[in-house]
Amino acid sequence: MEKPEIIMAPGPTPVPPQVYLAQGSPLVYHRGPGYGAVLREVTDNLKTILRTSNDLLIFASSGTGGLESAVANLFSPGDRVVVPVAGYFGERFAKIARAFHLDVRVIDYEWGQAVRAGDVSTALDEAPASAVLMQQSETSTGVIHDVEAVGRVTRDRGVLLVADVVSSLGAVPLDADGWGVDVAVGGSQKAFSATPGLAFVSVSDAAWAASKTATNPRFYFDWAAYKASYELKTPENPFTPAISLMLGLQAALRLYMEEGPEEVLSRHRILSEATKEGVRALGLDLFGEHSERAWAVTAVRAPEGVDGNELVAKVRADHRIILAPGQGPLKGKVFRIGHLGYYDRFDIIRCLAALEMTLEEMGYPVKRGAAVAAAEGVFASR
Amino acid sequence: MEKPEIIMAPGPTPVPPQVYLAQGSPLVYHRGPGYGAVLREVTDNLKTILRTSNDLLIFASSGTGGLESAVANLFSPGDRVVVPVAGYFGERFAKIARAFHLDVRVIDYEWGQAVRAGDVSTALDEAPASAVLMQQSETSTGVIHDVEAVGRVTRDRGVLLVADVVSSLGAVPLDADGWGVDVAVGGSQKAFSATPGLAFVSVSDAAWAASKTATNPRFYFDWAAYKASYELKTPENPFTPAISLMLGLQAALRLYMEEGPEEVLSRHRILSEATKEGVRALGLDLFGEHSERAWAVTAVRAPEGVDGNELVAKVRADHRIILAPGQGPLKGKVFRIGHLGYYDRFDIIRCLAALEMTLEEMGYPVKRGAAVAAAEGVFASR
Repeated sequence: MEKPEIIMAPGPTPVPPQVYLAQGSPLVYHRGPGYGAVLREVTDNLKTILRTSNDLLIFASSGTGGLESAVANLFSPGDRVVVPVAGYFGERFAKIARAFHLDVRVIDYEWGQAVRAGDVSTALDEAPASAVLMQQSETSTGVIHDVEAVGRVTRDRGVLLVADVVSSLGAVPLDADGWGVDVAVGGSQKAFSATPGLAFVSVSDAAWAASKTATNPRFYFDWAAYKASYELKTPENPFTPAISLMLGLQAALRLYMEEGPEEVLSRHRILSEATKEGVRALGLDLFGEHSERAWAVTAVRAPEGVDGNELVAKVRADHRIILAPGQGPLKGKVFRIGHLGYYDRFDIIRCLAALEMTLEEMGYPVKRGAAVAAAEGVFASR
Repeated sequence: MEKPEIIMAPGPTPVPPQVYLAQGSPLVYHRGPGYGAVLREVTDNLKTILRTSNDLLIFASSGTGGLESAVANLFSPGDRVVVPVAGYFGERFAKIARAFHLDVRVIDYEWGQAVRAGDVSTALDEAPASAVLMQQSETSTGVIHDVEAVGRVTRDRGVLLVADVVSSLGAVPLDADGWGVDVAVGGSQKAFSATPGLAFVSVSDAAWAASKTATNPRFYFDWAAYKASYELKTPENPFTPAISLMLGLQAALRLYMEEGPEEVLSRHRILSEATKEGVRALGLDLFGEHSERAWAVTAVRAPEGVDGNELVAKVRADHRIILAPGQGPLKGKVFRIGHLGYYDRFDIIRCLAALEMTLEEMGYPVKRGAAVAAAEGVFASR
């Protein structure tokens, strides 16, 4: 017997049966009250989870499309933006900004470091900038950047703050309006456990004002078109939406709201702690600053003599569990365990058991059951 | 009892149960041999149906995203393009080109007219142009433009031909390579009967050459990134793909290939004729030039005293069948019946019966059963 592979990479994440059933349900025609109600419900739930009263727009695209939409709608060629880069997705945001001919001031960090608000402040002091573009969760390192602290810097100076929350939203705390996030960009396939193919952005008044004068070209991702269609008597998309994915996201968000946003966050915190204690109990070192807030992804240093990529490949081949390898400079040196989304205690225990067995086979000294025991200890203390 | 609404609008179209089941199946992780095989199979089948040996790239987006990708990858600001506009989607292509700051030479037609290759020739004679951007099926009028004839004009002059085949591919004949189509843009939710959210483009060598020097910004729709990822040992997408929609499209294309491309075209032709004969038997007039090749959509003039929009609304309210209203200048004057995709004879008969009943209720003199009889006549003659 072969069960399907188990995804414990940071997205896409496992999908609840309710979401699969919704995706396999009859299409709701995209013009009319049926789809209008779906769009409104999904929009409202996303706003609740983001903690924003700003407009929220949904695209048929992956998260990267949402990031591009921010660059295309907010800026004109030559606009200066500050982009802290502490991993793969920081690099991606900088690349998008360069592709749209912005003047990109990168703040370079070693991968694994957390962005420091003081550095952003310094970069903004050098020369005026239109915006700061940053991640909340740098998926490649697992590090959660302090968006709240950066928000204090940008708000003081009237600079826009654009936050990529694709792999953090719903898994770690976020208060978009409270922290002064002008544009938050999220995706369907992370903590919500829907499947990939939908991106969304929240847009503050200041961001709308910037978009009015921005000359970068956009059509498919033109925010104004999505807003106008949403504000019809029966909300619509300007272009045919990914209806089945919207039905899936609707089901996923219902599950999320039934559990309750605070409860979901608490679950992510506990599963993250259990994962980290389990890994530590095997004598492995965590990677990245502030691992205590890395509730979405646990990044682990591959131990001496073990190649991280080989470990990930072997766990997949032997146990059908998909971890994520290190990217860029971390290739082979780090592996990552995703635990954002539809996970419970036994998903973590299963994963730690697979890790124990695989490390032992690779010649690393393992005390069988040690990681699982440590995780049980975390669960027992709750 | 209420069955789901029946879509007889030109996309999205009804979805076979096999496609729903595929969309409701476990995700295949997007990095690895499982997804690689899906991507390769879908790509190969689309190339077969397009009749092209060019590269084929698939995006998580609606068809409009695919159109934008052509404008973003092929051109630089100020490039002159010729855009025949004979309906809503012609206008859309012109708008996208303007949004990307191209020099757009529109050839204006009345809605319902077919593009004439001679007009394209004249527009190209006025001044050099980089490309012609046109529809094969102008969904808003049902008219099928003669891409083959325009292809002779563009090929002679070394001008790129970009064809929007979103609502025609698989429903009417196309020979992308034979006709000299450099870029064909299609979508998942039309004749293939998959659900919306995927777009794809074929890219000829000449189009690749143009993209090398094109300076319009692109990242999410950057063709080169998709090609590079596809050419990895295990094909991938550069950004997380809409995995569930790909599984659905895979299932849809298997059904399409099992039936056979020629057989599918023949079915579309017969259903189109039956629809048109049925409508004529009620004394209604077809709308648009060359209705004999309009195998995707039948556009019908609303009869004197009947508002087309009211008719569409009433058919939906009373019979749960979704027709499409007239757009733009055709609002109220025309209604449209989509018959591209997963339709058989009885879908057409059901639709014609609903039309008979609704027209009668709206005070239009109807001979009950006349439209159905005419359709049966078409079926009997095959």
